Amino acid sequence: MNGTKETNGTSKHVISEESIQPEEFQQRIATVRKALQPSGLIGLIAFGDCWRGANVCYFTEFRPLDGVSDIANALFFLGVDSPPILFVSKQCVDYASEVTTFAVHSFDELNAHLSSFASKHSDGVLGLAGEAYIPEDLHRRIKATIGPLTLTPHPILAEIKAVKSPAEIALIRKASALTDIAMMAIQKTLSDGHPHTERELALDADRAMLAHGADRTAYDSMVQAGPRSAFNLARPTDRVVQPGDLVMTDIGARYRGYVADGGRGFTYGAASEERRAIVRAAAAAVEAGLEAARPGITCADLNAAIQAALVESGYEKYSSEARGHGTGHGTGMDPEEEQPWIGPGNRTVLRENMVFTLKATITVPGVGGLRTERIVRLTADGVEPLDVFPMELYW
Amino acid sequence: MNGTKETNGTSKHVISEESIQPEEFQQRIATVRKALQPSGLIGLIAFGDCWRGANVCYFTEFRPLDGVSDIANALFFLGVDSPPILFVSKQCVDYASEVTTFAVHSFDELNAHLSSFASKHSDGVLGLAGEAYIPEDLHRRIKATIGPLTLTPHPILAEIKAVKSPAEIALIRKASALTDIAMMAIQKTLSDGHPHTERELALDADRAMLAHGADRTAYDSMVQAGPRSAFNLARPTDRVVQPGDLVMTDIGARYRGYVADGGRGFTYGAASEERRAIVRAAAAAVEAGLEAARPGITCADLNAAIQAALVESGYEKYSSEARGHGTGHGTGMDPEEEQPWIGPGNRTVLRENMVFTLKATITVPGVGGLRTERIVRLTADGVEPLDVFPMELYW
Repeated sequence: MNGTKETNGTSKHVISEESIQPEEFQQRIATVRKALQPSGLIGLIAFGDCWRGANVCYFTEFRPLDGVSDIANALFFLGVDSPPILFVSKQCVDYASEVTTFAVHSFDELNAHLSSFASKHSDGVLGLAGEAYIPEDLHRRIKATIGPLTLTPHPILAEIKAVKSPAEIALIRKASALTDIAMMAIQKTLSDGHPHTERELALDADRAMLAHGADRTAYDSMVQAGPRSAFNLARPTDRVVQPGDLVMTDIGARYRGYVADGGRGFTYGAASEERRAIVRAAAAAVEAGLEAARPGITCADLNAAIQAALVESGYEKYSSEARGHGTGHGTGMDPEEEQPWIGPGNRTVLRENMVFTLKATITVPGVGGLRTERIVRLTADGVEPLDVFPMELYW
Repeated sequence: MNGTKETNGTSKHVISEESIQPEEFQQRIATVRKALQPSGLIGLIAFGDCWRGANVCYFTEFRPLDGVSDIANALFFLGVDSPPILFVSKQCVDYASEVTTFAVHSFDELNAHLSSFASKHSDGVLGLAGEAYIPEDLHRRIKATIGPLTLTPHPILAEIKAVKSPAEIALIRKASALTDIAMMAIQKTLSDGHPHTERELALDADRAMLAHGADRTAYDSMVQAGPRSAFNLARPTDRVVQPGDLVMTDIGARYRGYVADGGRGFTYGAASEERRAIVRAAAAAVEAGLEAARPGITCADLNAAIQAALVESGYEKYSSEARGHGTGHGTGMDPEEEQPWIGPGNRTVLRENMVFTLKATITVPGVGGLRTERIVRLTADGVEPLDVFPMELYW
């Protein structure tokens, strides 16, 4: 919107040297365009919001803002025979234009652009990315506009963006290191001998990530102690961590648009053998995954390695992963991305430079639990863990 | 799920003394129930997610977790003749049960419960809260289940929760104080004479809020300097703040489930009279709002006071508020709540203990801009600003 060099999309101070560069965004658009027809699509509609931005942030540095109105939403449209368009709130068009390498329009113009595209195609399928969270209101507007075309959820974008570029890996590596620092902060705080609540430890983790340069947390940090560690997912409370407790943590940092997702659990003080065994079993299961992971196998194969280890350890009843709910997921621009989903039945073949988590959750009501979750990158012949914090922890 | 005193919903360490107590949640449910029939409704379906949780968090301490799957969602259902139910992801049922004073079920059971309710009512309207962001997928499932009943967006919940209780006001007060601290941190950093980027200043603000006990930021902090301060909403970049710049900030803290939303702008170093005049005009417009605000007038009346001041100051062309886009919004559990919306045409009457923002944005392309946004509580005969940081800033 502003013609000066200072504010155009290629300015060094607006898009940092560490961030994804305009050329890479352009290349990604070309890759997706090339994949449309072989996928049976005449176009892609990719929805992202402020918090689950990957479908949009794959194409632009722009990420929507927080709100209950349309400032939280963005939509990327690419037709086989038309240039890409980013649709954002009218309030964000100027900013979005600054950091986007192609046309930006307000949602007010969505109808006209989609109608025009639809009028040139008597039939065909538009692939939808973000079908799990696109708002009903926006979905209805799109459907009302595309005439004879079909709008159908399609994995094309999830599959393409599952393989990360060197620039992306460098950023995820930073986010992973910041996540390790959060775990170190929790360990340091707990070692001072004073009582600490779940909430304090979560805050400590967040402060440490920000102190070392994280832009923010990737998601709200989870710290659950004692009986609460047996909840699969929960927010921290004022419960004081007690000697003998199992403690579950699930923490990630965000660095310049990329995130990590990590989980560690530990016993605190003199803990029962029953609780120590849970730590060991989860670590062993993830270790089995680290050993099995390599390009060429399917997500289902990799999942089976962790699942089998959990079943063998005897925790089948107390582990959602042992019961087949999946043992990992893609990570990158969002803490949780759709592919690769490491779960039963997923025939997606793992490829070099996919980045994802490998995890094992064990939750025994009345005893406690934890989730051990590593973030890894697939190498040419194996796996590189991007976080380094140890998995077997007895503090 | 766990019968011990340690983990039930009334435990002091799970729900802190500062937080909303179980009795208050129960009272809110009773208030909404009583309002259903007079509003022409046979029930309420209130949707909330991890980031826009107010519609659900009004009834329970539970807030969904971050994710692309259903862990991010929650749904509150109340029928005229049936007990309340909270629906959450299967993965969150145990935690949600711990902190909720009524029945919690998994989304897997949504169909059965809504069908059963619908089978007892041959017709009637279910009010929907959260219609702007309910996912299409969930909306479709509800529609397919309610048989002859109608599902229609309804403001009943937005209007009831717009008036805050003493416990809520105490929490918003804390969040507001933490937001003031963020502004002080930015001022302190800038006064050291070294160069600082927008991103560093945003990080400084976030670190200060967390250092003083904020659970997290209410939303991603905005700091925009120089030409970028003329964007209505934007994310911080590596642009170094230059002497003479106008700087826009929009920052809020979250404290135990409640948030503040604040904006301040300032000139940095020796700045032109043109830029200083923008700071003065925005402050004067908000000041006009602070003077006009009192119970009994409508949102539209209050909006008119700020809008008129902006028009009179000559910035009509450069201020979205001057052009009628609204000069404030409810704040509480989410940074932006639907009511009271301080905008033209809103005949909602302001009431004591409504909490909302009053704002004036001026953005002059090529010159710069700012948003001055205060968070206030309506008293019996006027207004109490909950933040104290001054509005006219020349650093």
